[in-house]
Amino acid sequence: MASGDTVRLRVFSLNCWGIRYLSKHCPQRYVMIGDLLSREQHDIVLLQEVWSESDFVSLKKKLASSHTHSHYFKSGVIGSGLAIFSKHRIHDAFLYRYSLNGYPYMVHQGDWFGGKAVGMAILNIGSLKAHVYVTHLHAEYCREKDSYLPHRVVQAWELQQFIRHTSGGADMVILGGDLNMHPQDLGTRLLRTYTSLRDSYVESAKFDGCEDGLTLIADNPFISKKEIVPFEKGMRIDYILFKGASKVDVQCESLSTTKGSVPDHPFPYSDHEALTAELRLEPVSQTQAGDGQRAMEPDCTAGKLAELVDIVTEARTEVKVGLHCAEGMRYTAARTGVMGLALLLLELAIAAVPWLALGAEQPFPRASFYLLGALCFAILLTTFMLYIFYTMEVKSLQGAEDQMRLAVGSLQEKLRGFPLARPLGPQEHSALDTELEPGTFDPEE
Amino acid sequence: MASGDTVRLRVFSLNCWGIRYLSKHCPQRYVMIGDLLSREQHDIVLLQEVWSESDFVSLKKKLASSHTHSHYFKSGVIGSGLAIFSKHRIHDAFLYRYSLNGYPYMVHQGDWFGGKAVGMAILNIGSLKAHVYVTHLHAEYCREKDSYLPHRVVQAWELQQFIRHTSGGADMVILGGDLNMHPQDLGTRLLRTYTSLRDSYVESAKFDGCEDGLTLIADNPFISKKEIVPFEKGMRIDYILFKGASKVDVQCESLSTTKGSVPDHPFPYSDHEALTAELRLEPVSQTQAGDGQRAMEPDCTAGKLAELVDIVTEARTEVKVGLHCAEGMRYTAARTGVMGLALLLLELAIAAVPWLALGAEQPFPRASFYLLGALCFAILLTTFMLYIFYTMEVKSLQGAEDQMRLAVGSLQEKLRGFPLARPLGPQEHSALDTELEPGTFDPEE
Repeated sequence: MASGDTVRLRVFSLNCWGIRYLSKHCPQRYVMIGDLLSREQHDIVLLQEVWSESDFVSLKKKLASSHTHSHYFKSGVIGSGLAIFSKHRIHDAFLYRYSLNGYPYMVHQGDWFGGKAVGMAILNIGSLKAHVYVTHLHAEYCREKDSYLPHRVVQAWELQQFIRHTSGGADMVILGGDLNMHPQDLGTRLLRTYTSLRDSYVESAKFDGCEDGLTLIADNPFISKKEIVPFEKGMRIDYILFKGASKVDVQCESLSTTKGSVPDHPFPYSDHEALTAELRLEPVSQTQAGDGQRAMEPDCTAGKLAELVDIVTEARTEVKVGLHCAEGMRYTAARTGVMGLALLLLELAIAAVPWLALGAEQPFPRASFYLLGALCFAILLTTFMLYIFYTMEVKSLQGAEDQMRLAVGSLQEKLRGFPLARPLGPQEHSALDTELEPGTFDPEE
Repeated sequence: MASGDTVRLRVFSLNCWGIRYLSKHCPQRYVMIGDLLSREQHDIVLLQEVWSESDFVSLKKKLASSHTHSHYFKSGVIGSGLAIFSKHRIHDAFLYRYSLNGYPYMVHQGDWFGGKAVGMAILNIGSLKAHVYVTHLHAEYCREKDSYLPHRVVQAWELQQFIRHTSGGADMVILGGDLNMHPQDLGTRLLRTYTSLRDSYVESAKFDGCEDGLTLIADNPFISKKEIVPFEKGMRIDYILFKGASKVDVQCESLSTTKGSVPDHPFPYSDHEALTAELRLEPVSQTQAGDGQRAMEPDCTAGKLAELVDIVTEARTEVKVGLHCAEGMRYTAARTGVMGLALLLLELAIAAVPWLALGAEQPFPRASFYLLGALCFAILLTTFMLYIFYTMEVKSLQGAEDQMRLAVGSLQEKLRGFPLARPLGPQEHSALDTELEPGTFDPEE
């Protein structure tokens, strides 16, 4: 970009639902997606759920002339499913794998095997440095009783940490992906408030797409009504978020989504709707930019800080609930393991009696003896592995909670530094009342 | 720091060897370490191998008046063992867990359970923002045949990525820890060259410590000669690295290490020697700072870029060797699993014969039948889990290699942009000759 010129950047995001042999019409849909991308020629394409590398490779071949740069993020057993195509050179790529991501024994849900993560790519757009992030958080299988909420909150926490800390030198930040969170959900608020990322749906001057910007809609033939309960029409869980830094002002000129069907095709691109945002990048003159720290820091108004303290405190509570639950499951695993061991010892003791009293007949039928032994052994092995796994879950939750406590302490200190000339709003009061000992570490808590 | 003032910062780093019940004189050594820290009052204390949280907590209590701020990084099953104590406020903490870290079945080595990671803490030192990192990489158990070299190279790669990307807004960077790598090892060169971090041992104006700055020495009573083979005197694997950014110039005034014994005590603090660096922070006037991009970017001379290309290419080769090995182990796991399955089916077939030919006698003794069945089942389960584990290892290695390819492409492009007025050195030639297709992704490779 010649400095001083306005540039338009078209960003595309889609959860491709690309589980080979399981997702419906997978190969055909990839052909449709490839056609769309090579026709539309977006600047940046952010894809999720590209689970098979060969699907990425065939897309890459198809887009060789339109999108010369690409990166596929690898993680976990079959994941991360994240891919990026770009017209602009990708200079660097980095991946952060979330510390929590469901349970390996929930094989049918498959989240754990996906190795969910956030991928970062650094692009040079003319003289500007854009940090582009793509992510996919843990699915929500039941909104009423969402046992993965603590995992998703920790993911949102790690996502905002990663973006905040890695975007220090960026001129602009773009995040696209399937967050599996509604706009007003705790994780979304945490992410948006802490990073100051702006929602293209909210900010866009022009919108063309499903009602309320929904991206998982009842009208999509791949969606069963059950999936979107209790939301009749659907939900908005896919996003393109953005922000500019001191050198450049970024505005969203238009946002569009697909609407559950594709003209001249019997089915849509995916079970999710695709998003296309058109961003306008306006260079800020040096005098304007020098005015203050209009940089990557969150706006430092007292109101914003107080809101942030409240949100992080809410997240901390959620993580504590998850911690309580994980400790409970670890305890259950340990108890079951001890019972398995006791049963094994009992069996061995009974078997030993006739051995010691020589000549007495073996009271156990052999078959049941071995079967019971194998069962005890299986219980011991399973509970041991579960214990290890839950311990890791506990550590991750504790780690996130410690970081949150530190952050709340630091935010509260900043808040105290503000002149209290004007009366505090009720929200700010509540934030100060929480009065968590800032920065201290209390393992007994 | 009042702007314009010179500030001295004392940084301490020690691998505490804190495995409860296993490390010799563990409680007594923690008392000694606590005494040392509260007496010496370093500004920043970076500890590794504090495996037990209760040891951290008792240190924290002891240092409550001298080091009011602290953070313990949690990760993995018993780890990460990383802790930081500081006189300056810690505003934020973040942890990156390395994607590779040994094998869970090497229980006696314990690296996998430690959840090795790099911890970051953001400190405000006066008006300056210091990003402080503490880490501990995978141990080297046998230098001649180091099967963990690819894991350690990937860890060094991820460490430099993490530091580079998260230090964008920092005024100064400090890294302390046990890298388990010698100064000239591939991983150390990769880390230092890419991040431009300076080695306090090399840079220090004054040094007081073991010969050649060794930190794992033969004179330490906790060290057996076997551990340091083939180095008679010991090795230097613990470091304090640092750099300043545009606003501040950082110099190392002195470095000291312990020397294997502590006056008035029967044994030293740990099996590693402790490092203390005294850094001088000199604010750079705005006119000087404005001179050019003296920021967190690596020095962009052609020579440096060419060196970097060579090092990353070397690292890529090492990762490819590891990839080949991991794929081999995955294949072995799969083959063994198939054999276990075949054996199980064969056994079932033999057992089924008398069942089908009604009345014929069972040819199998029951005991061996069940034992063999249990064995087959155990083989199947074990090989299945190993297959999953090796697949994750393969993905991580591939992911690191992809990132390295991208980086080499980007570096080579930068290199091509340099005016070739002067003749190229031999190193630069070799870097250009490698000619990896920049930025392209080739899964067949």
